[in-house]
Amino acid sequence: RVIDAVAASDAVRASVAHAASLGIRINVAVVDSGGNLAAFLRMPGAFLHSIDIAIDKAYTAASFGLPTSQWHAALQQHSDAVREGIVRRPRFVGFGGGLPMVENGQRIGGIGVSGGSEEQDEACAQAGLSAIGLKS
Amino acid sequence: RVIDAVAASDAVRASVAHAASLGIRINVAVVDSGGNLAAFLRMPGAFLHSIDIAIDKAYTAASFGLPTSQWHAALQQHSDAVREGIVRRPRFVGFGGGLPMVENGQRIGGIGVSGGSEEQDEACAQAGLSAIGLKS
Amino acid sequence: RVIDAVAASDAVRASVAHAASLGIRINVAVVDSGGNLAAFLRMPGAFLHSIDIAIDKAYTAASFGLPTSQWHAALQQHSDAVREGIVRRPRFVGFGGGLPMVENGQRIGGIGVSGGSEEQDEACAQAGLSAIGLKS
Amino acid sequence: RVIDAVAASDAVRASVAHAASLGIRINVAVVDSGGNLAAFLRMPGAFLHSIDIAIDKAYTAASFGLPTSQWHAALQQHSDAVREGIVRRPRFVGFGGGLPMVENGQRIGGIGVSGGSEEQDEACAQAGLSAIGLKS
Repeated sequence: RVIDAVAASDAVRASVAHAASLGIRINVAVVDSGGNLAAFLRMPGAFLHSIDIAIDKAYTAASFGLPTSQWHAALQQHSDAVREGIVRRPRFVGFGGGLPMVENGQRIGGIGVSGGSEEQDEACAQAGLSAIGLKS
Repeated sequence: RVIDAVAASDAVRASVAHAASLGIRINVAVVDSGGNLAAFLRMPGAFLHSIDIAIDKAYTAASFGLPTSQWHAALQQHSDAVREGIVRRPRFVGFGGGLPMVENGQRIGGIGVSGGSEEQDEACAQAGLSAIGLKS
Repeated sequence: RVIDAVAASDAVRASVAHAASLGIRINVAVVDSGGNLAAFLRMPGAFLHSIDIAIDKAYTAASFGLPTSQWHAALQQHSDAVREGIVRRPRFVGFGGGLPMVENGQRIGGIGVSGGSEEQDEACAQAGLSAIGLKS
Repeated sequence: RVIDAVAASDAVRASVAHAASLGIRINVAVVDSGGNLAAFLRMPGAFLHSIDIAIDKAYTAASFGLPTSQWHAALQQHSDAVREGIVRRPRFVGFGGGLPMVENGQRIGGIGVSGGSEEQDEACAQAGLSAIGLKS
């Protein structure tokens, strides 16, 4: 299944609405299971770096099916070489704010938020998922 | 003035709704006056190349303040060197589907659509502008 | 549907076998519907440029659902601006050798071959499709 | 000697078969002694980041003639500057899953696998080598 345009748009709008309620400014992206950009929304004044961070958080979550906030702990069980190497890979983001989109056990994409703290970003991503009936 | 997130989202959704009414599948992007991505929406199955073409049409329209459909005629008044050089610049798109976003005479960004014919793409971009009370 | 690894591998091997029968050396690539590389095979001594040309032919065919050999004629019905602009887009290849992979009317990817003439390349791509029961 | 197309294809297929027996999904790449992609195969659903990681592991192994799993220990004998610098070089991968392809003492390429743990990835790469009569 591919996420449809209205659902993807509803998700990014819900993330932005949640950010507004928190008093922060974010960028938020949804990518499909192939990693292609499906939806994006930017609040004026959100950090410039956060445009790509949001997109790459979504990409990382879609790629591995893991919330990006869990990578730091997950990497503790790997060798030093992996721990130091993975974080340098292009488009990898290993901190919070990206959540996989899973439907009936199948990875259908990812959503990524950047602009606040890791916890705020993940809460905004979660609000995006909730708005379209998905759980993280 | 900077286009706000809800307006940018309304615009890309209106473009997608217009594309659906035409029976085509598009990607649509809005960039702000700084050229940064403000909103994006992809209809599943739209051409893959059109992701970046939509973004670059929006960028080109925001950059020069000219509908991208007018570039071909405009270039006839330039030297061969400009005519052949401009079209090779990264992120320049010289065919229809990108419209500047102008408010009270001030360029505030651009919207770009890719997925149909030039005329269809521009009509979708126009639908996006109209939805938020802007004229092209 | 996503093309499975064995089918993708069978396809590129059949293309290479056909190339060998023609006495040419090719590179051949399969990408999935999201444009991600699914399979690749290179005959030693095939042109170096052809590595990326093969991959981008597959990408272009998957993107638009059109044999890349049909683009030149198709572009005659577009404006000069589109005709000159599309061919300059990153990863666009507008000459023969790329075929879409379609199953039950649904685009599931593309196959691209580079190394011989356009006709030879397309014949090799066709051999790849035939080997896995797809028609172009 | 250059690895021929059938051998390269046999190698990536054997890696995929081994991955299937382990219940994991991988991407696997073979590059020749010139660092050019010779064969690639992706199992649907394998991590997106792993496409390039597999290719770069193969490249790194072909480049230095060392299993990528041995780099971390090898770097301990270098200066801090080298240790910190090498891992930042484009296309360098310093963790397990890449093996050089050596025949009669001559480096003829590399194979790289990404998608499982370092040990699983290296076992899959090893299965690829074994299938074509090479030792790591």
